[in-house]
Amino acid sequence: MSTRTGPAGGHRVLVPALSATMTLGPREVRHLHVLRVQVGDMLRVFDGQGHEALAVVTVLDDTRAELALGSTLVGVAETPHPLTLAAALLKGDKLAEVVRAATELGVARVQLLITARADVREIGAQKLQRLSRIAAEAAKQSRRAVVPLVMEPIPLHALTWEGQLYVAQPGAATRIVDALDWTAPVTILTGPEGGLTDEEVAGLTARGAQAVTLGPRILRAETAPVALLGAIAALGR
Amino acid sequence: MSTRTGPAGGHRVLVPALSATMTLGPREVRHLHVLRVQVGDMLRVFDGQGHEALAVVTVLDDTRAELALGSTLVGVAETPHPLTLAAALLKGDKLAEVVRAATELGVARVQLLITARADVREIGAQKLQRLSRIAAEAAKQSRRAVVPLVMEPIPLHALTWEGQLYVAQPGAATRIVDALDWTAPVTILTGPEGGLTDEEVAGLTARGAQAVTLGPRILRAETAPVALLGAIAALGR
Repeated sequence: MSTRTGPAGGHRVLVPALSATMTLGPREVRHLHVLRVQVGDMLRVFDGQGHEALAVVTVLDDTRAELALGSTLVGVAETPHPLTLAAALLKGDKLAEVVRAATELGVARVQLLITARADVREIGAQKLQRLSRIAAEAAKQSRRAVVPLVMEPIPLHALTWEGQLYVAQPGAATRIVDALDWTAPVTILTGPEGGLTDEEVAGLTARGAQAVTLGPRILRAETAPVALLGAIAALGR
Repeated sequence: MSTRTGPAGGHRVLVPALSATMTLGPREVRHLHVLRVQVGDMLRVFDGQGHEALAVVTVLDDTRAELALGSTLVGVAETPHPLTLAAALLKGDKLAEVVRAATELGVARVQLLITARADVREIGAQKLQRLSRIAAEAAKQSRRAVVPLVMEPIPLHALTWEGQLYVAQPGAATRIVDALDWTAPVTILTGPEGGLTDEEVAGLTARGAQAVTLGPRILRAETAPVALLGAIAALGR
């Protein structure tokens, strides 16, 4: 469904901050060479915090690139309030796929969770960094101005949220389409491979969370977040 | 979100047809041994055509197993009319992930498509068989009584459909939640990595298809079908 070629300034570059002159690091410089960018070309720069602008390449050699700031872009494709995915830890490389798809689908944060039935109870610093890198790549590819934060795991009971939390739960009667409220931040929560326990779900609903359906079939833990975020995106946000 | 342990007869076995006595092949027999199934245990058998029943193991040795048919199960988790995913061919192993998730999300058929911007224009017989095997596995794991058919690629213009076809299209204004009609079969169509061409979309809508949104962001070709099928599942079917 995607297209990588865009309007003028189609290539997007992540910078630490939008400023009059921006110097790029070696990784981004290599990327510009791969894209056959030349001095004078227009790019898009974004800071990962929701700011995006046009920029012109003023210097480009083997190891160094400088950009001059152009006009600021507004109306980028962000949700009305921040969208958080609170996802139980998963085995293997499944979290990478979830983070990638969740970024395309508009999340601002991924909060990893330790739950009762988790196969995995911790995640190494390197793996967490890799997930952040994947979020940054996916943000760039889907032309988002926000790079989602991937936050280290906390126990489910320590999770707090602003606005409304929706928990995907087999057998729930409520539909996200009827319950979704964009007047405040939104958090969706999905469980581990073995599912959340009844006690975990009861604890969340006692704190105001709403259980929502994902249909009558059993979904894998890595399919549920994409399906639920897809349902939210299909509502137009 | 899933749980593999179920009620009595939780293990599910695919059989060619439901009959009074059913003999299993070596692959299923090995599987029963892995699951530590014993003579006298209750299983669930399904034929991949929507029929499912309980069965008792009457014979089980190293290479052979026989089951005796018990009561038929009804009310399995199928959509009101058949749901078809018409998906453009994708590179590498991406189709496998799409078929797996689409099966969990309730599709009855996956029709592969050759489109203008496809990176891939054909698929080997072996790869097609592998996709069918993945559909069968995923059907079993998500306790579906229907194994989706994976159908060899046809050119987009040769695609026909019953009922309504919804095509995921960046920039579309219509939401699937407002357009979805379950009084007849439903087909959803997603494009290749480079997207469908304007001509392809125009050709589909001229034939009655409806373009639907998946939100304001650009999705990868392998995320779009899961997101759109997730949106349909989140509507409760």
